[in-house]
Amino acid sequence: MKLIAEDLKPDILERIDSIRRYMKEDGIEAALVASNANIYYTTSRFFRGYVYIPLAGDPVWFVIRPVGFDEEKDVAYIRKPEMIPAGLTKLGLPLPESIGLEYGALTYSDVMRLKALFPQARQHDCLPALRKARMVKTRWELDRMHEDGVHQAEAYRRVTRCYREDMTDLEFQIEIERILRLEGNLGFMRTSGNLMEINMGSVIAGDNADVPSPYDFTMGGAGVDPSLPGGANGKTLRRGETVMVDMSGSFNGYQTDMTRVWRLGEISALALRAHECSRSILRECEKMGRPGVKVAELYDKAIEIAKGEGFDKYFMGHRQQAPFIGHGIGIELNELPVVTSRSHDVLALNMTIALEPKFVIPGVGAVGVENTYVVTDNGLKALTVFPEEIQEL
Amino acid sequence: MKLIAEDLKPDILERIDSIRRYMKEDGIEAALVASNANIYYTTSRFFRGYVYIPLAGDPVWFVIRPVGFDEEKDVAYIRKPEMIPAGLTKLGLPLPESIGLEYGALTYSDVMRLKALFPQARQHDCLPALRKARMVKTRWELDRMHEDGVHQAEAYRRVTRCYREDMTDLEFQIEIERILRLEGNLGFMRTSGNLMEINMGSVIAGDNADVPSPYDFTMGGAGVDPSLPGGANGKTLRRGETVMVDMSGSFNGYQTDMTRVWRLGEISALALRAHECSRSILRECEKMGRPGVKVAELYDKAIEIAKGEGFDKYFMGHRQQAPFIGHGIGIELNELPVVTSRSHDVLALNMTIALEPKFVIPGVGAVGVENTYVVTDNGLKALTVFPEEIQEL
Repeated sequence: MKLIAEDLKPDILERIDSIRRYMKEDGIEAALVASNANIYYTTSRFFRGYVYIPLAGDPVWFVIRPVGFDEEKDVAYIRKPEMIPAGLTKLGLPLPESIGLEYGALTYSDVMRLKALFPQARQHDCLPALRKARMVKTRWELDRMHEDGVHQAEAYRRVTRCYREDMTDLEFQIEIERILRLEGNLGFMRTSGNLMEINMGSVIAGDNADVPSPYDFTMGGAGVDPSLPGGANGKTLRRGETVMVDMSGSFNGYQTDMTRVWRLGEISALALRAHECSRSILRECEKMGRPGVKVAELYDKAIEIAKGEGFDKYFMGHRQQAPFIGHGIGIELNELPVVTSRSHDVLALNMTIALEPKFVIPGVGAVGVENTYVVTDNGLKALTVFPEEIQEL
Repeated sequence: MKLIAEDLKPDILERIDSIRRYMKEDGIEAALVASNANIYYTTSRFFRGYVYIPLAGDPVWFVIRPVGFDEEKDVAYIRKPEMIPAGLTKLGLPLPESIGLEYGALTYSDVMRLKALFPQARQHDCLPALRKARMVKTRWELDRMHEDGVHQAEAYRRVTRCYREDMTDLEFQIEIERILRLEGNLGFMRTSGNLMEINMGSVIAGDNADVPSPYDFTMGGAGVDPSLPGGANGKTLRRGETVMVDMSGSFNGYQTDMTRVWRLGEISALALRAHECSRSILRECEKMGRPGVKVAELYDKAIEIAKGEGFDKYFMGHRQQAPFIGHGIGIELNELPVVTSRSHDVLALNMTIALEPKFVIPGVGAVGVENTYVVTDNGLKALTVFPEEIQEL
């Protein structure tokens, strides 16, 4: 496939082979991939169209837009998906006896339209296979996420300078957004599902951290408009409060996730202790997080430590508590595994996860640290390297 | 329903009644709404959960998150959608004989899960009813969009000042993003479908306008990373080129869409003439655009004018041409109607559409104007009032 750079080909093949292993387990003979994240995962580029992945042989790209790709053996232009079966036949490929479609990533209408293309085939959900493959990153993917972490830390280094007296949380966030963009942030985060409506992350100050949100983020916030009830609320930053900065690490097709806390003046001893508790949880998880360890064990350990210090009522929120302390991350912000007590996933070498044990302290705000990690034989290794102490504004 | 402000209730009821008219036409006895845009449309707020809309009587909100809503007659907390049928029974409501679900807005998995809740009911797609209702705006919705237009114009007034010598298109865009955010832009645009991956809009300079994109925007651009191939490409702005600014008008749950063009130094007479052609098209459409006129007629008129001036090969793109010149707009950037020759929609009073007849002139860049309009008895009235002439940087 000429459209992929030579040095990328083995890496993409490794991803495809990983998908195929899970497809086989699920009895899927061919997958037809159409979601944005999975088109990028399987090609390292983005187009409107479909990637057809048989268990053996090269994947085929069916491209609708843009114009300008060279048509070759495994790249064919189509006007609409109904042209895919004839396209396969033209390429000498048999129609599959079982087809996998992304049930949890495409709309009902889109999946029904694709199902009609393969009436003779058994039909399966191929999204689990793709999500499982994507949990473990290849060398090239890890390199991208390493870059993200470096850029994100570089931008965070300039956060303190974004502050001016009497600023609102939102004004502070806007300056951080600019710093991130100038550092190369794409200004757009791919997320899975519809419960992460967000621009470039969130800045939450003081008691706004205790406002429950409908979204699937660990922290809440009222937002500035009822249509988007999350994050900064436009109030002036005040002494004695924390400002939690959880802004985008999306500098290429991948991303890292990092949270750090700033403070105005002195904050309560309780808040300081809770912040240190978050760091203790991370240190413990870093040690535990080797291949073969159950993801749920990380969650249980975090709860155990938080409870042990008497902080359980502030842990992962106060008025509303999130039931997870972390998540897989890569092309999308919220990938598998979900770090929760109910997880059945097991850590594997080169899996990437963000851990964010956080506390909401009434009257002060949110504290805690979030890092993005890669699983190594020696435990979790941080991709987001930046001082964890609370910094003064 | 106490959760809705008194002065908003009649407006929301008007929206619900409009949905109901289309539900009746489609044989739908009750709709269960779950997409973000439609939860906002039917409640003027956002939560994670479901709005159940029977043909008569109050809608019921089934809320999963956030905590903190007062439970009352028509607001019930649930942990999962499987609790909805029992919730209806508890409220004394019969299970519907036909249920509408948003086939084109929810994933296949989500729709299948909801279908299983009503095994006895005939099942229909209710998204067409919602999309048709949303085409025509209520007074309150028009007020929001009027606000958007005012704020967007206010931000555009500061665009020229964002420019500094030897800037890249992306650096220029970043300063415009900041100006928009400081003006109150939410930094997030709701869009329909998966082919509008964008942050706060696009700034396209010079020949980057001629780079075909996979996305459903009228203009292209290479972007700065293969994972997001659209918009600014990071090249330095050059004399003799245009810079097209098509940035977000999302200042509340609604939005306006406006494009204006800046130039560096002198640009070719061809580009100037094409820009005036765009304005002529808009003037003609403004006159034509009264209730009862077919949307396709606007498109056909635009093509006729562009062809008449010999500009058809540059119209709506050059290497790749978009097959539409505008779109409905409101809660989402890309609502119905699509302004294309194949449209069967007819303009109605208080419908809102964005028209963007644009040209891509090789060697110069993109030219043309986009305004957001409301349909009145006297034709189209612009919500985006800002000088249309090409301005110098």
